[in-house]
Amino acid sequence: MDIVKLPELLVLGPPILFKVYEREFSTKFHILKPYESPLRTEIYLQTHGQSVRALLCYGKSPVTAQMLRLLPSLQLVMTAGTGVNQIDLPECRRLGISVVNTGDVFSEDTADYAVGLLIDVLRKISAGDRHVRRGAWPVHGDFSLGVKLGGKQVGIVGLGNIGSKVARRLEAFGCIISYNSRTKKSSVLYNFYPNVCELALNSNILVICCSLTEQTRHLINKDVMTALGKDGIIVNVGRGPIIDESELVKFLVEGEIAGVGLDVFENEPSVPRELFGLDNVVITPHRAAFTQEAFFEAFKVLVANLEAFFSNKPLITPV
Amino acid sequence: MDIVKLPELLVLGPPILFKVYEREFSTKFHILKPYESPLRTEIYLQTHGQSVRALLCYGKSPVTAQMLRLLPSLQLVMTAGTGVNQIDLPECRRLGISVVNTGDVFSEDTADYAVGLLIDVLRKISAGDRHVRRGAWPVHGDFSLGVKLGGKQVGIVGLGNIGSKVARRLEAFGCIISYNSRTKKSSVLYNFYPNVCELALNSNILVICCSLTEQTRHLINKDVMTALGKDGIIVNVGRGPIIDESELVKFLVEGEIAGVGLDVFENEPSVPRELFGLDNVVITPHRAAFTQEAFFEAFKVLVANLEAFFSNKPLITPV
Repeated sequence: MDIVKLPELLVLGPPILFKVYEREFSTKFHILKPYESPLRTEIYLQTHGQSVRALLCYGKSPVTAQMLRLLPSLQLVMTAGTGVNQIDLPECRRLGISVVNTGDVFSEDTADYAVGLLIDVLRKISAGDRHVRRGAWPVHGDFSLGVKLGGKQVGIVGLGNIGSKVARRLEAFGCIISYNSRTKKSSVLYNFYPNVCELALNSNILVICCSLTEQTRHLINKDVMTALGKDGIIVNVGRGPIIDESELVKFLVEGEIAGVGLDVFENEPSVPRELFGLDNVVITPHRAAFTQEAFFEAFKVLVANLEAFFSNKPLITPV
Repeated sequence: MDIVKLPELLVLGPPILFKVYEREFSTKFHILKPYESPLRTEIYLQTHGQSVRALLCYGKSPVTAQMLRLLPSLQLVMTAGTGVNQIDLPECRRLGISVVNTGDVFSEDTADYAVGLLIDVLRKISAGDRHVRRGAWPVHGDFSLGVKLGGKQVGIVGLGNIGSKVARRLEAFGCIISYNSRTKKSSVLYNFYPNVCELALNSNILVICCSLTEQTRHLINKDVMTALGKDGIIVNVGRGPIIDESELVKFLVEGEIAGVGLDVFENEPSVPRELFGLDNVVITPHRAAFTQEAFFEAFKVLVANLEAFFSNKPLITPV
């Protein structure tokens, strides 16, 4: 009997996606799991990682220059998601290490989720559900009015895969779309604002869909929130640090903006406790991309990339 | 100084819409409020209602044949909403009393709300918000996967003003629309099923948008839910009694359908307590039509009807 040696895959985190498909991954690859080892990660990598050529991480498992130095054979870094802000991209480039994400498989679901958060905030769905579950409906019948979605000026921050899908969905609700992006897109007719403050000044609602980079960190600051104004709503399905969270909390507590729908936070899984008592906020645990269907697509994309990599073919979804 | 006698308007309930715009109504009409009187309603109507020509009610204030007999001058019954199931329409017709609703002003908001409830159920937004607020995210990081909206077969029950707006919105999310209605609509290309069981058999999701009539009471019964199946989702923004609620509760508790988003219930404001502990249900206090913008539009429609009525002009939104 031939013993086939499976190619090694080092898993950091682990990503939830990996946990869901661990059995399937394990039939194709020899999995290295530092998170199950009693050794410190650095020691584990020095001991077991010397021949590792491929690594799987996710949004919350940083891939630093220091870690890369401990993995001399590494040629491929894959993330089980869309964002790559946790990966030291310049260092990967310098070392000739390829970086791969899951491509576009999560963008429809993330766009759906952004719309869901927005309707929830405007129409107080979660707050209404709490009202009913705590038995308040028969006692305090009245429940305050919501805000109409139709006709609202929506500013999309980042008109990429996700942002353009959010825009297309909100058009069907009668919203008027504008956007801010690194560059004006020739493919759309929406109003473009090169400055996010100007976008906020001309919007009732901001939907944050951009990726986290040094340029977008705290892009949504005090000035942007002031420009958006007291009746403004913010939805964030990008990354937490794109918003200056402590300023946001102040604006909410002081009633200087009307409401927020947040799926991402600056220090996940920690969420500012000041938000827990507010009825004009919807706060969810970074799940905009989490559907059974998208996870299965992402699993297939990751395996296809690994199979291409180990057979020296071009990668499917390089970043 | 001339004393102008304002026309009388009898208000039952009162509707929340009336409470929001009471000051404005009171400058134009002499308001009769049986709900503020110590008299029993029948006695109040016999004492103060003999010359009343116009009445304003809402979904939860029945206008019965018995009540109509106590109001000999009545010529106009207005409801501050869309549904007229609380009004004895045949008796109004027999007595030559006109019936008016608020027309189409609530249908966009109700359609938005239906989509919001659906995304919330599929993607567990309210459940995720509860997870975060109870401090569970840092402790039990994982939170189960949701279900993708795109590509789903959605069956619209009642393709009227609201149903067709729900359909148009869900098309933008990549859903495949079918419908059941009294008659096939020549204006749309969606698949038509004359039988709601057949619609359920061919749908992943049912969205109830029809009005409550003797034909639609308990239209969504055990057979329809069985046809929809274990993975099926139901959203109801029509009226509670369109669903056999006690059967629905059984199906949910036994896991025979996957989830529901309900804004309406059979015995509002009472909601089956079995639902309070379930994470796959979203239950809100009959607020699908409740936005500041739609309320203002509805107020204008009601006043326009009253002004037309009292100056013998054609009504704006007769039922």
